[in-house]
Amino acid sequence: MAQKEEKLGINVKKEEDFSEWYNEIIIKSELGEHSTIKGFMVIRPSGYAIWEKIQNYFDKQIKKLGVKNAYFPLLIPDFFFKKEAEHARGFSPELAWISEKEEGVRYAVRPTSETIMYDSYSKWIRSWRDLPLRINQWCNVLRWEVKQTKLFLRTREFLWQEGHCVYETEKECDKEALIYLDEYKKLCENLLAIPVLIGKKTEKEKFAGAKTTYTVEALMPDGKALQMGTSHNLGQNFAKAFNIKFLGKDEKEYYPWQNSWGFSTRLIGALVMVHSDNNGLVLPPKIAPIQIIIIPIYKTENKEKVLKKANEIKNKLKTYSVELDDRDGYTPGWKFNEWELKGIPLRIEIGPKDIEKNQVILVRRDNNKKEPVKTAQLDKKIKETLEDIQNNLFEKAKKFLDSNIVEAKDWNEFLKQIKNRKFVKAFFCGNVECEDYIKDKTEGATSRLIPLEEHKNPNKCIHCGKEGKYMVYFAKAY
Amino acid sequence: MAQKEEKLGINVKKEEDFSEWYNEIIIKSELGEHSTIKGFMVIRPSGYAIWEKIQNYFDKQIKKLGVKNAYFPLLIPDFFFKKEAEHARGFSPELAWISEKEEGVRYAVRPTSETIMYDSYSKWIRSWRDLPLRINQWCNVLRWEVKQTKLFLRTREFLWQEGHCVYETEKECDKEALIYLDEYKKLCENLLAIPVLIGKKTEKEKFAGAKTTYTVEALMPDGKALQMGTSHNLGQNFAKAFNIKFLGKDEKEYYPWQNSWGFSTRLIGALVMVHSDNNGLVLPPKIAPIQIIIIPIYKTENKEKVLKKANEIKNKLKTYSVELDDRDGYTPGWKFNEWELKGIPLRIEIGPKDIEKNQVILVRRDNNKKEPVKTAQLDKKIKETLEDIQNNLFEKAKKFLDSNIVEAKDWNEFLKQIKNRKFVKAFFCGNVECEDYIKDKTEGATSRLIPLEEHKNPNKCIHCGKEGKYMVYFAKAY
Repeated sequence: MAQKEEKLGINVKKEEDFSEWYNEIIIKSELGEHSTIKGFMVIRPSGYAIWEKIQNYFDKQIKKLGVKNAYFPLLIPDFFFKKEAEHARGFSPELAWISEKEEGVRYAVRPTSETIMYDSYSKWIRSWRDLPLRINQWCNVLRWEVKQTKLFLRTREFLWQEGHCVYETEKECDKEALIYLDEYKKLCENLLAIPVLIGKKTEKEKFAGAKTTYTVEALMPDGKALQMGTSHNLGQNFAKAFNIKFLGKDEKEYYPWQNSWGFSTRLIGALVMVHSDNNGLVLPPKIAPIQIIIIPIYKTENKEKVLKKANEIKNKLKTYSVELDDRDGYTPGWKFNEWELKGIPLRIEIGPKDIEKNQVILVRRDNNKKEPVKTAQLDKKIKETLEDIQNNLFEKAKKFLDSNIVEAKDWNEFLKQIKNRKFVKAFFCGNVECEDYIKDKTEGATSRLIPLEEHKNPNKCIHCGKEGKYMVYFAKAY
Repeated sequence: MAQKEEKLGINVKKEEDFSEWYNEIIIKSELGEHSTIKGFMVIRPSGYAIWEKIQNYFDKQIKKLGVKNAYFPLLIPDFFFKKEAEHARGFSPELAWISEKEEGVRYAVRPTSETIMYDSYSKWIRSWRDLPLRINQWCNVLRWEVKQTKLFLRTREFLWQEGHCVYETEKECDKEALIYLDEYKKLCENLLAIPVLIGKKTEKEKFAGAKTTYTVEALMPDGKALQMGTSHNLGQNFAKAFNIKFLGKDEKEYYPWQNSWGFSTRLIGALVMVHSDNNGLVLPPKIAPIQIIIIPIYKTENKEKVLKKANEIKNKLKTYSVELDDRDGYTPGWKFNEWELKGIPLRIEIGPKDIEKNQVILVRRDNNKKEPVKTAQLDKKIKETLEDIQNNLFEKAKKFLDSNIVEAKDWNEFLKQIKNRKFVKAFFCGNVECEDYIKDKTEGATSRLIPLEEHKNPNKCIHCGKEGKYMVYFAKAY
């Protein structure tokens, strides 16, 4: 049997060329690849399996909250976009239009589904009895980005979920917008082991058509912020544009309040950046499609015996997601490297000597620690170790985030810390032009969020010196 | 509290205007609706929940067979289509093109994904070690139909799964194409309670670019056949067009063999047609998103007591998908009608008198039978009844199918039986022009399938009188 021992590893170092390292991790761990079509990507099975785990987790959460899934058309006619002016302005530059099929009607491929969904809502909602209406859609969207493509992070098509809910009162609407935001935080922190900050967007950065945009932000190892999900209180803007009305308990007509909220496959990009290392992908156990890989070590004369034991162990660990790599024609060393590259949290090695000692060798992906474990203790040890890996990855990322948040007291310090690629807190006036200046003078730093807590001891705006309305986190961002 | 007692029921009878009855069932049971955009539909939560159940079932089945999910771009460049001539010819009339974004490149929204997937496959497959490759995609596709829209059955966009596998040998390829076909049969019969016939398509009806197309066909109550899923042995056609090659164990280069297979949201249309009645939707228990609805019957003075008991019962039935309709402002009678319309297989009524007698009233949706059941026996009785409903619906449909298959011995009988809306078996020459004539002279009957069994005692072609190659089932079809 021919050996296939080609070079598997990552050729670029995370600390030397972060961007190229990221690209290599994605491609070599087979999460995804660039499509022949410019700006598009293919999500390969290993990447899609992560998306499925995210979907399964989140879908259960929102169903508990009373949300139901549905599906709305891919194409949106231009006359729908025009109904909400801000929304139309925000999305126009990124639309892909279908060549005209009928006289006078132009369709765009959806960049988001507010308009097409709310057209239906206007027919479904008649009375307060129909509220709250909570609908979610898992789908693909298209935004014709002009910037350079980046796998999972910036592609013309991506997969996402978009939740769209309707309420009688603004209080309920805003409260639930924050509940969905909190679900995003839990998803990021508990499942993906990525610590996040939550807050509001400034006027400049909020969603086209929203009253308030809430955001979940994470800090990547290169000091750039990444938006992990957003939740918008749309106010009554779309209700008025799409003529959604309900008859209240008092028999009078009202416009309802709406929120919408979404996250996308870019979460997979964040997952890769935050945890992976120079040996390849590192996956937190809770999101890893394969949690444990068993690698048997044998020669021809003891192959049968070793494989038998390896299969026994596999069957004992059925509560985990476990695979046995019993392929012929690859050395154990080659297999170690391959599964390391693919980010499997735990490796179990088992050879004839281990069988004699009633043990296996357990190797952690996150810190490379290797230890013999008696088979009788294996189940307990694995449970503890997977938990420990999950916590360890989170704590490492949390330490990084915490140590990279700094407060700037004056403009020079602000410039310096942005240059240092920090997440910089500063008081800010809220003015759109002032924010444009900040972006310009920092070569691209944007406001990421306004924390939801009260803003004590307000200071002057870090840039213009006028009244500092609130504390804002600034950073360069993906 | 105001009563909302508007007319809920179905106004058209199944036996009088099947097409309009179907439309009314879909709309009033809130499975779906026509979108404002011509030719498109909205899948409402009740319809999407059925799709999710189909997906969950089928996804587990194919994963057991080694299939992995992935995601490929929505847009396909024209130069991909052109690579396989038959395929291009077959799909060209139905394509929706994106207005040109870059000089000289035209993109169509995918009508199916062979070409875009096989472009990636040509990069992934190098050696026999990479085979078999088994990939599936759950996604939306667009086919710009000119015929009249029919909810779930004929819309410009629909949801589906498309499996695309690659093998070393034709034997393996064809064998697995039939395994996926068999999975479709199981899905239809065991989950949807729809009996099906399986077979091969004739030359005229096979998939554009395939060597052989296998099909699963069902008969609708109006005597029209409906294709439930297809599986294609693509031969080496696409491998040659997309230059997919592998190095065999003998170190020589070969083109691999491929199959592809798909079913779509039209299964939901078939489900509705086959089982529903003049009171609304009827759902087999295994596919019903809600299997049991509990309706409490109370007056103000005993409301608390009845609701307490109803909740107790709900909690006892947790292994089923059960809901309690405790909405105020609706009479029990109105609720009966609403849930009947929505096709819930079992209704539990509980009032103060039932509580005294330690019983509930159990009502079946399929045959309207009503009986008191002691609460101690409830769990057992429900298990039996749900199974019985599932079987009963299948048997009813099976009887209908069997009694509507007839064999025609001569052309006049053939014409008569097609007119009688039967599934007509006859020997056929296999010639494309002859099939065109048959379609023309019967006002639309097409060949649906060639059974896979051997064709004993072949007779002359039913139309042209030349050698009858095989037995073929003909019918008008959706």
